[in-house]
Amino acid sequence: MEPPLHPAPARSLRPTPDGAIEIIDQTALPHTLRMTRLASLEDVARAIRDMRVRGAPLIGIAAAYGLALALAARDDDAALDAAVAALAATRPTAVNLRWALERLRMRLAPLSAGMRAAVAWREAGAIAEEDAGRCRRIGEHGLALLSPLAAGNDRPAGRLEVMTHCNAGWLAAVDFGTALAPIYAAFDAGIDLHVWVSETRPRSQGLLTAWELKQRGVPHTLIADNAAGTLLAQGRADAVIVGADRVAANGDVANKVGTYLKALAARDSNVPFFVAAPSSTIDFACPDGGAIPIEERDGDELRVAGGLDAGGRPAAVRTIPVDEAVFNPAFDITPGRLIDAIITERGHCPATAAGLRMLHPETSRA
Amino acid sequence: MEPPLHPAPARSLRPTPDGAIEIIDQTALPHTLRMTRLASLEDVARAIRDMRVRGAPLIGIAAAYGLALALAARDDDAALDAAVAALAATRPTAVNLRWALERLRMRLAPLSAGMRAAVAWREAGAIAEEDAGRCRRIGEHGLALLSPLAAGNDRPAGRLEVMTHCNAGWLAAVDFGTALAPIYAAFDAGIDLHVWVSETRPRSQGLLTAWELKQRGVPHTLIADNAAGTLLAQGRADAVIVGADRVAANGDVANKVGTYLKALAARDSNVPFFVAAPSSTIDFACPDGGAIPIEERDGDELRVAGGLDAGGRPAAVRTIPVDEAVFNPAFDITPGRLIDAIITERGHCPATAAGLRMLHPETSRA
Repeated sequence: MEPPLHPAPARSLRPTPDGAIEIIDQTALPHTLRMTRLASLEDVARAIRDMRVRGAPLIGIAAAYGLALALAARDDDAALDAAVAALAATRPTAVNLRWALERLRMRLAPLSAGMRAAVAWREAGAIAEEDAGRCRRIGEHGLALLSPLAAGNDRPAGRLEVMTHCNAGWLAAVDFGTALAPIYAAFDAGIDLHVWVSETRPRSQGLLTAWELKQRGVPHTLIADNAAGTLLAQGRADAVIVGADRVAANGDVANKVGTYLKALAARDSNVPFFVAAPSSTIDFACPDGGAIPIEERDGDELRVAGGLDAGGRPAAVRTIPVDEAVFNPAFDITPGRLIDAIITERGHCPATAAGLRMLHPETSRA
Repeated sequence: MEPPLHPAPARSLRPTPDGAIEIIDQTALPHTLRMTRLASLEDVARAIRDMRVRGAPLIGIAAAYGLALALAARDDDAALDAAVAALAATRPTAVNLRWALERLRMRLAPLSAGMRAAVAWREAGAIAEEDAGRCRRIGEHGLALLSPLAAGNDRPAGRLEVMTHCNAGWLAAVDFGTALAPIYAAFDAGIDLHVWVSETRPRSQGLLTAWELKQRGVPHTLIADNAAGTLLAQGRADAVIVGADRVAANGDVANKVGTYLKALAARDSNVPFFVAAPSSTIDFACPDGGAIPIEERDGDELRVAGGLDAGGRPAAVRTIPVDEAVFNPAFDITPGRLIDAIITERGHCPATAAGLRMLHPETSRA
């Protein structure tokens, strides 16, 4: 494998010494590694909305920093409420965003105005550190599920073939990732691994996954989303592992649109289907997938393709005429019955109400 | 709905008075309606390989004309064999191609060299006419399946929502189409109809379907392939109808990659899944889907997106870096158990060996 084109920074988001944050602009990848400075509430909200910052865990962390930036500009109760509302409105499906904002609000509300910006800043940092730790542990628990599949299959030398969808790696978290954490853990453990990466139309976040895996030298192959079924039917994947934007109390999972189709195909071929997510993704207040709001995004995400032109310059082409109607839901619901295990920082459990409650007794009581 | 941008020609392929054929270059659609003249065996073989001419029924007809053009240039047994071999090698999955070539070879072999070009030309025309007639009857038989769904659903005023994949319309046949024939028949019968059109990555033949439907004023909406599952789960489609590149003797169907995922999702939501194809698509010599060769195409189909630039000029962008490995199967196999009916020019039948034999007793004995 060739050396990485772009030496990757250690993390997908980092605070700067002068009180702003710096992010990788994920809309410029995989072609350009561009760091973008976000210095205000508005900067952060726009970056989340435009998906320059994306991935359920990472948008929670970015939103926490956005709240800290808002309070640094103006610290009173009205400003706190307005900032929480503005950030919560950026994306409707991922629950980590609301979880992080609620955590900050509860921590900050009792404090006096004027003191809260610094506390919010530290708390955002704490959420980031905790998230990295949770993702690391997701990797360990996921590895325990993947290892037997590598040992048990009939490929030469225990080769393990894993399929993923969208990007749930360190770009989507602050470090390690969720779905990719077990893949990195397996790779680091010396398992002979290959990853099938689904393009993930319309936003093609599979290219982010391919870019991430390339940085680490993990062998992988891109496929059209349509090709996932035939690969699974041909026995060419030992497991499918994806992240989540929200896990309902009954084990139903909202994740990037197309996840449900992969879960159906995995079940039809008896291939285990795993969902990896930090506990902050579980919404015990949400009874089932039907109660999760599904974000509908602009049709131009489907109509316009971005990339590099023949001269290697960033360019876009309109692939679909502007007058064609487009329906563009960003997520779908995978019923718990199609999920073999949900992996969190605590371990793994069946995708059922009982399973989730057993793994997370405190949170589920709250 | 706006008036059509491009007045559509009557047919996707037509012979010219001076002994060549003219096709719609399907790689230029939906942005440009470009007619291309094919005057030799090589022209036809290249146009099929490059998918300027595509769709299982149409490539059979194009190949028949290609054989006639080869014989017009040189008419002896060696030329006949070489032309059949060259045309059969252009695409491996669709069986109509081999069916049309075999029909011509059987008709031509007993004739004297020097007489065969004219016979081949007439026979190619006969195949085209017969195909158009078969597609018209597929439309009538499919309408009989769709009508009760329009009457039986709980949408206002019997609105019928149909989902399709790839392009199996008149662009893919010579007229009417296969999967789209029942849709056109339902529209012409005054049924309030709306079609969900799947983009069909990597070659985006859904745009051809959208273009076709627009010519006829049939309401439709484009979706990413990934969105098909959530639409079906939400009860927003009453039926899925697709074409076929080959139907095995047991009812398994090879069709454009991604078909299998839609069949799984339709079954999971109890939505009927129909396959529409002329009888020339049934390969009674092929026992099941596992015996159908699946064409693997160049990875650049996934890596490069074509469309119009900001100035409205045709342009392409590289969406996936050139050094990313890509796996690009063009078809997948949908098991007969997921198919509610196969519709041919004879009627419809279960996707089983017994069903296909009953509908096509002569062919199945041959």
